[in-house]
Amino acid sequence: MTSNSATSTKKCPLEGIKVLDLGQIYNGPYAGFLLAHAGADVVKVEPLSGEVLRERGGGEVPLSFAMLNTNKRGITINLKESKGKELLLELAGEADVLLENFAPGAMDRLDLGIDLFLEKNPRLIYASGSGYGLTGPKRDNLAMDLTVQAVSGMMSINGLENGPPMKAGAAVCDFVGGVHLYAGIVTALYEREVTGVGGVVEVAMQEAIYPVLTSNIASLHRNKWKQPLRRGNKHPTRGSAPYNVYEANDGHIAIICVKEDHWFSLLRLLNREDLIVDKRFATQALRALNEDAVDELVENWTKTKTKEEAVKLLAKNKIPAAPVRNLEEVTRDEHMHERGMLRYVTHPIMGEIVLPTSPIRHHGSTTRELNLEPHLGQHTTEVLSDWLKMSKDAIAELRGFNAIH
Amino acid sequence: MTSNSATSTKKCPLEGIKVLDLGQIYNGPYAGFLLAHAGADVVKVEPLSGEVLRERGGGEVPLSFAMLNTNKRGITINLKESKGKELLLELAGEADVLLENFAPGAMDRLDLGIDLFLEKNPRLIYASGSGYGLTGPKRDNLAMDLTVQAVSGMMSINGLENGPPMKAGAAVCDFVGGVHLYAGIVTALYEREVTGVGGVVEVAMQEAIYPVLTSNIASLHRNKWKQPLRRGNKHPTRGSAPYNVYEANDGHIAIICVKEDHWFSLLRLLNREDLIVDKRFATQALRALNEDAVDELVENWTKTKTKEEAVKLLAKNKIPAAPVRNLEEVTRDEHMHERGMLRYVTHPIMGEIVLPTSPIRHHGSTTRELNLEPHLGQHTTEVLSDWLKMSKDAIAELRGFNAIH
Repeated sequence: MTSNSATSTKKCPLEGIKVLDLGQIYNGPYAGFLLAHAGADVVKVEPLSGEVLRERGGGEVPLSFAMLNTNKRGITINLKESKGKELLLELAGEADVLLENFAPGAMDRLDLGIDLFLEKNPRLIYASGSGYGLTGPKRDNLAMDLTVQAVSGMMSINGLENGPPMKAGAAVCDFVGGVHLYAGIVTALYEREVTGVGGVVEVAMQEAIYPVLTSNIASLHRNKWKQPLRRGNKHPTRGSAPYNVYEANDGHIAIICVKEDHWFSLLRLLNREDLIVDKRFATQALRALNEDAVDELVENWTKTKTKEEAVKLLAKNKIPAAPVRNLEEVTRDEHMHERGMLRYVTHPIMGEIVLPTSPIRHHGSTTRELNLEPHLGQHTTEVLSDWLKMSKDAIAELRGFNAIH
Repeated sequence: MTSNSATSTKKCPLEGIKVLDLGQIYNGPYAGFLLAHAGADVVKVEPLSGEVLRERGGGEVPLSFAMLNTNKRGITINLKESKGKELLLELAGEADVLLENFAPGAMDRLDLGIDLFLEKNPRLIYASGSGYGLTGPKRDNLAMDLTVQAVSGMMSINGLENGPPMKAGAAVCDFVGGVHLYAGIVTALYEREVTGVGGVVEVAMQEAIYPVLTSNIASLHRNKWKQPLRRGNKHPTRGSAPYNVYEANDGHIAIICVKEDHWFSLLRLLNREDLIVDKRFATQALRALNEDAVDELVENWTKTKTKEEAVKLLAKNKIPAAPVRNLEEVTRDEHMHERGMLRYVTHPIMGEIVLPTSPIRHHGSTTRELNLEPHLGQHTTEVLSDWLKMSKDAIAELRGFNAIH
């Protein structure tokens, strides 16, 4: 152990950091996942009935729960019982981080307000993920990924030009909020090394989405908010063509020509060098103006190929392109498996599944084992003994009070 | 200055941290933005011709550039000239962080490989954002937000049930990658406090998107990859209704009933309490099965209301709902302005604009001034004098070598 001297054999960045993860569904648990995969001792705290995401597997633990809760230990605490509240405060006294994504005010209603935790442990970092934040007039608006996608503007720019606003297919608000929450926690951990004190860090999903919309906000602003909000797969500001998703004979491929060279290479590949001098296509701006003609030209070619054939030819000619892959294909991506981002794991219930590690990669860090999601209350005894040096009798007493499982 | 003692009057979390931000477009600059807004001294390093995003404003600086580069200082360095390369290495000797999102290998081709920086400064954190990462067989695939949306699976689950795969309207890959890059940098800063050494941290956009797709991966996996990939605005796994975006008489609103109480309240609001006993709607699963009937019922009501009217009534009855807002409405959001997330600023060229601060909020931190994006090379002299104690003559000499602007 050489953790306090300069050394090139690093362990994991957050080794030794203790986390109470009260997260539920996606937002909080993803912040906890990133902490766990950076080496922290993350203890997932669940109610006696289990975190709500557990129930969404139709009787079995769903893959989503397995994906987000690797490398965490699991305990149960009944926060409606006074002995349970006391226990959480005791654990917070030993923790570096407590994170939760309950609705604002929910912890207060349990008589577990933030101040109580910070009084107990001034070095604690209390992290809150929510829809709209802990302050402000809309704090208490009900926030799910769907409603935050609506108010945040995410829906307004997604969908077809002549169609209604459309939800992004992924739960982007939950996860974009979650990674910002992780980032805020680690920022506070760094700050604590300097100041010696913890504090409160919060992330509102609505606010985390705002910067993600930068390019859309900028182009609409430039056009006095008037340009088509939605453009399907076409360039958002009609600034570039080819820029679209094209039909292949077995699926779709995305193609984008950023530079003049890309366009010339594409014309050569299509055996249409005659069009190099075509005035409709002389500049990027003109091609964008004539995007329908450009798209027809390109799709007439892509339709004759499989997506892999087309993408290989495009890559060989250094034209930016990519196959549209479905999620089954993505989970089997050899590149991500080779890099260690994805791993095949045999799960006792689900059999062979693919689980992700952290997308944040620190060169030289120890590669950790991947431990499956905890069973409900699997580590209650272990953690209470580890963190609080609690005796078996004391733990049994807590069980008697219905404070733990 | 009480930076080394416990105190409740905090400054900014990253005060004193020096960053060289070689980011371009969205991915790298957003990581630099988060660093700047956490209090770091972020120096944006641009080529003599300026960062490429500057050109996208039709002659003026685009709002996107202004949004992502507040609170940064700006310098120019010509990395194609040997004196420019030397200068960057000198600056890296003084820096805590260097971040870039060039294509993998681009810095090597400039004879500015990572090792050179870490030899110069073993405490440096070198941060790389890219499409597919610094290793692996697909490292060199051309990566733009569009192509990464295609291969990452993001497109496959976005769009209408009977329509083609569709790009998410926002540049999600760039920004989700960018915030993970910030998170990785801050994690490495924390680790350096313990180990004394810096190192390399990298984030691949494709990998950062994977966890965002958790719920989609899980539900497709459960259905043996067979269920409709895309569901438009409906519940991704047909697990819930109402769960949709409905037409109001002046726009759209999102409504979602999570609990039985929400459904009962909705029926009361619609004056359709007779349906409480309707067998088609007796459980969440049955309502999902009959989602078309549910949606028709709800939309017949929403169509008679403005979106604000409908949302007010729904809120009063504690039914989760939200108006679909366009981006102009979002920039004027009173809640985010009151919280300080958004600010009205008078820009010398654009006039009154709205600029974001960081979505990561540390309670008790000093509220910083919002400094507009730097002009090209605005702080070159200032930074070289600050960081390297360079004389005016030495700076003039660098200009003579075409190493700086």
